[in-house]
Amino acid sequence: MKELIEYIEKSTALSEDLINDLKAIAIEKNVGKGEVILQKNTSRKLQIFVSSGCIRAFYIAENGKDHTLQFATKNWWISDYMTLFNNQKSILSIESLSHSKLVIIEQSQLEGLYYKFPEFGLINRTNLQNRIAALQKRIFGLLTLNAKEKYEKFIEDYEVFEKVIPNYQIASFLGITPESLSRVRKEISNS
Amino acid sequence: MKELIEYIEKSTALSEDLINDLKAIAIEKNVGKGEVILQKNTSRKLQIFVSSGCIRAFYIAENGKDHTLQFATKNWWISDYMTLFNNQKSILSIESLSHSKLVIIEQSQLEGLYYKFPEFGLINRTNLQNRIAALQKRIFGLLTLNAKEKYEKFIEDYEVFEKVIPNYQIASFLGITPESLSRVRKEISNS
Repeated sequence: MKELIEYIEKSTALSEDLINDLKAIAIEKNVGKGEVILQKNTSRKLQIFVSSGCIRAFYIAENGKDHTLQFATKNWWISDYMTLFNNQKSILSIESLSHSKLVIIEQSQLEGLYYKFPEFGLINRTNLQNRIAALQKRIFGLLTLNAKEKYEKFIEDYEVFEKVIPNYQIASFLGITPESLSRVRKEISNS
Repeated sequence: MKELIEYIEKSTALSEDLINDLKAIAIEKNVGKGEVILQKNTSRKLQIFVSSGCIRAFYIAENGKDHTLQFATKNWWISDYMTLFNNQKSILSIESLSHSKLVIIEQSQLEGLYYKFPEFGLINRTNLQNRIAALQKRIFGLLTLNAKEKYEKFIEDYEVFEKVIPNYQIASFLGITPESLSRVRKEISNS
């Protein structure tokens, strides 16, 4: 929880009342490697803040193929954004790739805080705007980068976790085949 | 402007004061085919609402390759979201693919309205949330669909404009080669 408060207070100081309300709705959770935080096809609407560790949002297609939508590490939020704000059941599952420390908040309870504390609504707006920019950047990367550039960007963003994340998950996140990933890695280590 | 007001009022009635302020900051513009609305590498921060027509946000890579990030048709918003909320210069260009009717609003002026009319801040929150869901859906589609499924989804979303949009732009939007697009089209027309 300390990590979340510190993270938010980087941009704005929070009142004691707001911090107390935030603590009241937040669930701190330590999860182990492989532990599932959100199941697909449930009605739960969760915002997950990563205090430490590495988390993955993914989708298993009907043909069994595993697609990684997002990785999240320290100070990132992760969720099934396709269903977080509507009444649909979750499409993605979210699991931990390492021992991780999380803060989990129900979306409906967060909404309550935006009304009660307008300044928190403003913080949230910045947060939503940042997420929009990040999502468009991800689309931009998927469309414009070649396999090597995608992998180099991945290393930049997830340096510490490169060893923790299985190859097939990295490849699926980058939208390239595991074969391309091996080729690119060899290219880089030979250069 | 009528179209934008009607669009917003589908979810919430707007006060006369808010409508007047909105009209005061909005620029209505008719643009022709090929007309550029936002140039890359400028400091302008524009939200563009499409009253009618078809608009495209794109990026020309150093190697000359043209990448389509977004198409927008009636009642859609389009912008360079990677730079809309920060101080960076625009990365994308935005052009019209047909005769289009637009409402163009400077981001800083919109921000002013959120403060003055808290109810408009709430409408904006919903708007931002919808955009997050739409962007993650686009990533989901890029990662999980094959070329045929991508094209079928495109037809569903942009039915009217399939004939207006050049093939290379459709292919670049879908993240497939123009050759794949031709193959998929033949497959579909033969089935």
